Amino acid sequence: MSLEVVSNTKCFGGWHKQYRHDSSALSCSMRFAVFLPPQVSKGESVPVVYWLSGLTCTDENFMQKAGAQRVAAELGIALVAPDTSPRGDGVPDDPEGAYDFGHGAGFYVNATEAPWSQHYRMYDYVLQELPQLVETVFPVTQQRAISGHSMGGHGALTIALKNPGRYSSVTAFSPIANPVDCPWGQKALRQYLGSDQQAWREHDASVLIARGGSMPMLVDQGDSDNFLQEQLKPQTLANAAEKSNYPLTLRMQQGYDHSYYFIASFIEEHLRFHSENW
Amino acid sequence: MSLEVVSNTKCFGGWHKQYRHDSSALSCSMRFAVFLPPQVSKGESVPVVYWLSGLTCTDENFMQKAGAQRVAAELGIALVAPDTSPRGDGVPDDPEGAYDFGHGAGFYVNATEAPWSQHYRMYDYVLQELPQLVETVFPVTQQRAISGHSMGGHGALTIALKNPGRYSSVTAFSPIANPVDCPWGQKALRQYLGSDQQAWREHDASVLIARGGSMPMLVDQGDSDNFLQEQLKPQTLANAAEKSNYPLTLRMQQGYDHSYYFIASFIEEHLRFHSENW
Repeated sequence: MSLEVVSNTKCFGGWHKQYRHDSSALSCSMRFAVFLPPQVSKGESVPVVYWLSGLTCTDENFMQKAGAQRVAAELGIALVAPDTSPRGDGVPDDPEGAYDFGHGAGFYVNATEAPWSQHYRMYDYVLQELPQLVETVFPVTQQRAISGHSMGGHGALTIALKNPGRYSSVTAFSPIANPVDCPWGQKALRQYLGSDQQAWREHDASVLIARGGSMPMLVDQGDSDNFLQEQLKPQTLANAAEKSNYPLTLRMQQGYDHSYYFIASFIEEHLRFHSENW
Repeated sequence: MSLEVVSNTKCFGGWHKQYRHDSSALSCSMRFAVFLPPQVSKGESVPVVYWLSGLTCTDENFMQKAGAQRVAAELGIALVAPDTSPRGDGVPDDPEGAYDFGHGAGFYVNATEAPWSQHYRMYDYVLQELPQLVETVFPVTQQRAISGHSMGGHGALTIALKNPGRYSSVTAFSPIANPVDCPWGQKALRQYLGSDQQAWREHDASVLIARGGSMPMLVDQGDSDNFLQEQLKPQTLANAAEKSNYPLTLRMQQGYDHSYYFIASFIEEHLRFHSENW
């Protein structure tokens, strides 16, 4: 397990770091980012919030644009942001270079279909390999929370719902909340998982939440989000949660869109939510 | 004076907006960004902090990466971020496309040399045309402060020092503090202003501050900044300020580099500084 340091930048008294490593889950070289709060320099071990980004993002978007480090530094939380797919010349991409499939669009599943199944195993990477690495290398506790945006909100919700003991809490911004019933989700799940829609349903937050559970969950959704009706469908998630008595808090935020300006406006509340639920 | 709305995004209860207009100072179409805090929606007029960005930036870098809107929303401050040079096919650029001259590198001067003098008049644009437009179109007071980073720190300091009645306060991150004596400054000033170094000195913060003044000034500089010794030279500014009794506060910030992670870490203190000095 060798880690190459890509960058090392002081931020709010802590350190933003980028690393590269050879991922066994994804069979390629991967970059990820970590924010270590100032408490770490004082010898403390800190809990971790994993952040899953949306379509087209890398490890950089959240770290550069969400402004999360300020509150993470205050609360003593490490932030970990993986890339959104396997990458590199050897990793197959959408033949037409579409933004919503292939590179930058791993959808946080383990692909079962050729040619994707060799590399596109973001579910294993996020759930197993990356935390194992983080918990080996950095002074962190085994307290974990998970959050994300759009495709990454889908990833956070589904990974948390499928692994209730693994995280203390889950939050999402503008998640793709019912991917079996939207164009982004259908396009990706069909290619990664094949035509049997039963397999897709195992990666659909609205399906999974209907089975119940109790992990604290907070979802923020802007009501001026261009993707709200066609792609995101938070109301489907809320309806399913209500039926199964799942403790979901869904907040429709008036006037906000799908951008990082929305995330920046509410990330503090998400980190405080995680912090109250370790 | 016609303004085209490019984007309109809710952020921290206020609005981040991008506009395009035909600049008479620069003889080209220009884009700029404004953050209007929530107080504006309640009918209040608010003061303005102008932000000047560094080499290669547009109006977007600061708005996306500094996280300034949170505190601006709290304090009731509008933020205005212009581009860093005239742009477009009709605007001459560095023949080799260098990052430190031409497009993205206007250095906040009025060029006197051909072929630059037709368009490269960022000094007039920032000092006159843009505030005039902002104060006509938006519900702002005539309270102004100015700040910037690197080349934009140079711009903020020199424009403020040359126009003491125009701004209430000035701050800078990692400014090019003595451009007549560094490669970035010499390259740009020679081409924009000609070979007579006396003209350059009229755009050098360390020269100007030696003449005295009393506008409150705060400068933050990371001591792990790669450009510190060769390009930035804050100590020259501090020495000149000391001789002229100028009220400069220069803070060397341990471990910080030249990036927006540094700006994000301290922008709150800069906005509070401006807010205390209206």
